[in-house]
Formats: sequence, C-alpha cells, structure tokens
Amino acid sequence: MEQLSVTKLAPAEPATVSPPAVEALPTPALLLDLDAFEQNLAKMATFLRRKGVALRPHAKTHKCPRIALKQMEAGAEGICVAKLTEAEAFIAAGIRQVLVTTPVVDLLQIRRLMTLVKSAPDVTVVVDNPANVDALEEAAAAAGVRMPVLVDLDCGAHRTGVAPGPASTALAQRVARARALRFGGFQAYAAHLMHVVGYDDRRRSELEALDYALTARRLAERAGLPVSVFSVGGTGTYDVDCDIDGVTDVQAGSYVFMDVMYRAIGGRASSVYDDFKPALFVLSTAVSQPVQGFITIDAGYKAAAADHQPPQPWNLGDVSYQWAGDEHGILTLTNPRREVRVGDKIRLIVSHCDPTVNLYDRFHVCRGDQVVDVWPIVARGALPVTAAPGGDV
Amino acid sequence: MEQLSVTKLAPAEPATVSPPAVEALPTPALLLDLDAFEQNLAKMATFLRRKGVALRPHAKTHKCPRIALKQMEAGAEGICVAKLTEAEAFIAAGIRQVLVTTPVVDLLQIRRLMTLVKSAPDVTVVVDNPANVDALEEAAAAAGVRMPVLVDLDCGAHRTGVAPGPASTALAQRVARARALRFGGFQAYAAHLMHVVGYDDRRRSELEALDYALTARRLAERAGLPVSVFSVGGTGTYDVDCDIDGVTDVQAGSYVFMDVMYRAIGGRASSVYDDFKPALFVLSTAVSQPVQGFITIDAGYKAAAADHQPPQPWNLGDVSYQWAGDEHGILTLTNPRREVRVGDKIRLIVSHCDPTVNLYDRFHVCRGDQVVDVWPIVARGALPVTAAPGGDV
Repeated sequence: MEQLSVTKLAPAEPATVSPPAVEALPTPALLLDLDAFEQNLAKMATFLRRKGVALRPHAKTHKCPRIALKQMEAGAEGICVAKLTEAEAFIAAGIRQVLVTTPVVDLLQIRRLMTLVKSAPDVTVVVDNPANVDALEEAAAAAGVRMPVLVDLDCGAHRTGVAPGPASTALAQRVARARALRFGGFQAYAAHLMHVVGYDDRRRSELEALDYALTARRLAERAGLPVSVFSVGGTGTYDVDCDIDGVTDVQAGSYVFMDVMYRAIGGRASSVYDDFKPALFVLSTAVSQPVQGFITIDAGYKAAAADHQPPQPWNLGDVSYQWAGDEHGILTLTNPRREVRVGDKIRLIVSHCDPTVNLYDRFHVCRGDQVVDVWPIVARGALPVTAAPGGDV
Repeated sequence: MEQLSVTKLAPAEPATVSPPAVEALPTPALLLDLDAFEQNLAKMATFLRRKGVALRPHAKTHKCPRIALKQMEAGAEGICVAKLTEAEAFIAAGIRQVLVTTPVVDLLQIRRLMTLVKSAPDVTVVVDNPANVDALEEAAAAAGVRMPVLVDLDCGAHRTGVAPGPASTALAQRVARARALRFGGFQAYAAHLMHVVGYDDRRRSELEALDYALTARRLAERAGLPVSVFSVGGTGTYDVDCDIDGVTDVQAGSYVFMDVMYRAIGGRASSVYDDFKPALFVLSTAVSQPVQGFITIDAGYKAAAADHQPPQPWNLGDVSYQWAGDEHGILTLTNPRREVRVGDKIRLIVSHCDPTVNLYDRFHVCRGDQVVDVWPIVARGALPVTAAPGGDV
C-alpha cells in the first residue's frame, strides 16, 4: 500500500489552520472539484447498480489509486487499465481486479504480466490474434499460473480486436483449449462511437455495433463456451449499454471528470451532455497583457492536452482561449464576467481529460475554494521502466 | 549535483556484455540518436562562435541537465528556461547561468525566485510591466540580493513583452532605478516567426521584427542605459539573427532534436529544413492488425504531442500515421519498405519535440541500434510543487 501514501496537507499544523485557498496555488495546477467528483462517482454507480449491470471503470483516465479505490468502494467490480505498467501501479496500491484492455504482445512484457498474475490471479488481459494466445499460453505455463483472458472484438473502430464471427469463435476456442489460460468472455469497446454528436445518433450507432459484437457471444455459447464477461462501452454510451441483453459491465472512465469533448456530444434532452458534472480544471495565472482586450495565461501545450479543441475558460463570461505555444494561452476578453488582470487566477475546463491528467503529477483536491487534499497521479506516464526484472532494458 | 546521477546501464556487468538493443526496449519509449544529437550540438555551437554571437539554448525543449551540461561544454554562455521550477531543477544540477524567459508574476513564486538568486546570482528574469518590476524590487530588497533583469519585448507575437518604443525605455529605466535590480538589456523572441514556411519569407519577417525590436536598444542607449544583452531568436532563425548588429545571443532550443514541424518550414536551399538532423524518435510496437493494409501501434496522444501534425513513421517508405486515441495510432501501409507485422518495433519522428519530451521521464540514448545510456528528464512537468518553502501550497 506504499504507493497510496499521500501528502495530507499540513498534517503537523494545529487544527485551527484553515486549508489553503485554491487561489494561492502556484500554476499551472490540476484541480479536482470534490463535490462534482463525488456526485459523478455516486451517479454512475447507482445508475448501473439499478440496471443490474456492473461498472468496470477505466483507470487510464485518472491514473490515480486514490480514485480507483473510491470507485471500488462505490461498488465497481474491478478496474480497466490500458497497459501493463498501469496494472502494476494499481495492483501495488491494493486493487486486484484489473483488466488490461489492450493486447500485450511484447515477449518481455508478457513475462512481466505473468509475474503480476502470480500475485494477483484475477488480472485479465485481452487478445485478438492466435499467435498472441500461444505466446500467453507459453508464458503462463512457464510461470505456473492460469491467466484469465478475454477475446477483444473489433466492432467498427478497426483499432484492435478480431471481427465478431467465425474468427472470434476460433480465437475463443484457442484460448479455452490453452491449459494455462482461462477463457472469460469478450470485450467490445466501440472507440469510434463514444463521441458521436447527438444522443439519438449515438444510441442507434452503439446498438448496431453491440448487436454485431454480440454475434461473438452467441456463436461462442453455441460452441459450448461459457461467456461470463461481455465488457463494453464508456461514458458516451453507458445508458445505452446497460439495457442491452448480454452485456455484463461498462468500462466508463471520463464520467468522473468530464471535459469539453464529452460536453459537446449532447445529452438525451439538451445540447450539452450534462449527465455528469465538470470536476477537472486547470488553474492558470494571467502573466502578461501586451494588447488590451487580450491577456496571456501560463497554460499552453504542456498544461492541457491539444489533441482536439482547446481548453475553455470556466465561468468567465464571453472569453475564449487560443493556444500560444508550449507554455502559454491567450484569452480574448470579448465580454468577461469580471475584470481580468495580470496576476489573476483563471480556471479552464480541459478539452480531453485523459491526456491532460497525464501531464500532471498530482490532483489538487478542492472543496469549494479550499484545497483539502493532494492525490498523486501514481501511474502518470506509466511508461515501461528501463531496468525491468531480469536485467532487460 | 545529485540530480545528475544517471542510471548507467548494467554497470556491474562484466565488460563483455554488449549494450542492449534498441529493438528490445519496451514501448512506447523516447529515443535520442547520439550521432545526430552530437552533430547538431557541434554545428550550432561552431556556427555561432564563428559569427561572434553567443548561444543561450532553451532548455524547455529537453528539460534534461545532462543535455544542458553538454551545451555548456560546447560553449553556450548560459541556458534559457521557461519557468521558475525549471530554473530550480537546472541550478540544482550545477548550471548557474539561467535566464527565465517568461515573466514571473505570482508573489509566492517571486519569493522563491529570490531564494534561487541567493545561491545563483546570475539567474536572470524578464519583465514586461511596471507593477512586476516593483514586486521584483521589493522581493529582491527583502532577500538582500541584486537580481539581473531583462526587459521582454513584444515584437509581434503579442504573447508577452512590452512594445519597443517609449514604453520599453520607461520600463528599462524603472528597472535601472530599482536598487535591488540590475538592468541587463532586452529579450526579443519572435515566437510567431520561427515556423514561417520558406527561408526567404522567414528571413524577411525576422529582419523586420528585429529591426523594430532594436528600436528599444537604441532608445535605451540614448537614455544612457548600457545594454549588455539583446537575446533573440530560435532554431528557425538562428542564421538570420547572427548577422544582425546589436544582437548578442540566440535562444535556439529545438536544434538538438528537430521535429516534423521544423523540417516542414523549408531550408535555405531545400524544401526540407535540414540544417540539423532528426535525433529524437518515439519507439513503438505494432500491437494489432484488425484490417489488412493497416496496423495499430502503441503510440497515441500520451506518447507524442498532438498540438500540430501527427508523428511520422521514420524510414518506412510510404506509410502514414493517424491518431487512434490516447494509447494508439494506426499506420496506413500504402507501400512499406519492409513487411510490418504485429510485434514489430516502429520508429516515429515526432511532430513537436518540446511537448513530446514533456510526456516522458527519460531519454534512451542510442548509438546506432544499441542503447548506451539513459538520461533522466529531470524537469519533466516541472509543475510547481505543492509544499513550497514557507509552508504555502
């Protein structure tokens, strides 16, 4: 549990010291609004529990054991991670039900995966090709473990996965035949549909994609293979996924934070998707004002992910952000709600939460305008370490 | 010098063990090609030395003390950093001539800056407004230091800086009058011109911008203020900047690595800007092939900066990359130079070096196909720490 040790603020201070103000934080800093976060956490957990579908939240979004443990306490049946190194970080923090949602094909990484399975036997990995099944089988046998495996389905994103149909059945059978592997079922994540704009279009697309994906389940069962897991979906489709017969759990990740991209996809009854509340913000400082009507802040490409839209000023009226390099953004002060001057702190809602979180080492956890805790982003980066066990680089 | 301690690979192994192969690295990994890097380092240093202009390389690009020390050994007269926290990291590594190229306006940060000046009296900061001069003066006086200051000029990017003219003279005079500050000269970085496509257009634009900026120098000297520093330019304009009378040093950063963006601006005599060699690569692994003619690699938004173009496969023939989310990219295998299969390692040249380096914790330093060293990216993130001296958050 060592990785969970967290810097509680001012633990040695007398109890009369009030928590530090958000406004006093040096910037750029990543803020987690605890009220919004807790509402998001509870809303998704309650909703899926009532529907009788499990929640298997994707931890690649937050990379933070503190958050994963809260998701587990709220009833999640396990977590997803994107890669082996993330799995290692979360298992070290005490979470044992971990699904690695991307095939692990490198032989050295496969060996490390088996080391992990020895200490956490529920760690599960996905496969999408026969050679990878054989490599996993060989490594699991050598390590003396029996590893749970899901077959990854390509339901239209063409990123990873095998096509539902004869190929998926053949692969499932190959897993089931492998003595050191245990066939658990399927994963069907429609990456290309999470951000379809418009609730009805998104619902229709996801229903079609999952109907196609569920072919794999039907064929596998017809071939005598029990399917205990059929893991799908995400924040954009959770309330579609939960009504589909044959789905066992939902892999939502972004719901804890929300971002500009998800807000833009539209909700069931509104143009803004507001099922979950914005809980993640970048705090920046206005550092320069070369031209009236504009102001420069200390948040650029290194402070907020730039893969889609830019971040947006939060609760500041008619003010827009444009990128101004690695370290800066420029705000256009068309009709600000309050005067903005050099030295002022500015909150931004981020465009894309996952890669933005990956830029920071810690969340500054806030209740209203006070910083009440600091949560380390333990698996930030989570890039393979250089000196792996066994001396390989 | 503690921050300089570097994991030398296999130091305890017998000398007969050959260095590990690049191909054996777990991915995604950041590679530094030592041959190309050393050529870039020497070429810029030699070129500017012959021109009689100093090199003050921008370390925000690499965030790595090992590289900064090599730049100093090659003759740089100091380094630039983008922010206080980077300055702290490089000074801890033994580099004392550090210019902070962005105004520091937050009062807590200003206090930390003065702590730094106490141990490294050559640390210099830029200013662009009178209130900031007064705040620096007050903090420097309180700390009992005399801090070198440059006036930052806005030569067209409208990001930071004061307009060259009466305002720049007034600001320079304000600095010169402040007893705890020492006026050193000006900074004039034309951020908007570094990537102008076409050598002639770029040259013409930079000459115009610096002619305008040098007004500030002429006016300051006419007002009796000695100008010892006039720091300008970058990788895109170094061979223009060096010929301009009144310029003292060039702030090039990307020249050590190069990237897709810089290659695309065009050189003096070719459509590819190839004054410096590509030395920075992301190593990835092909992990899945759902559709023939395409292949998925394990490098997405968390492995390469996405603010401009996508990364490009290197030396792979007619193969293009498209983003496929946080963890993946998809290669279109139009006419590859060699067969590409699941499990293969793929090198990418990155689109934008600075924010890509900021995603990684270390460079894997390669000589040909062998990994010969690992250099920590000590100032990665370099986000303000939570518990600053004095107990503030």
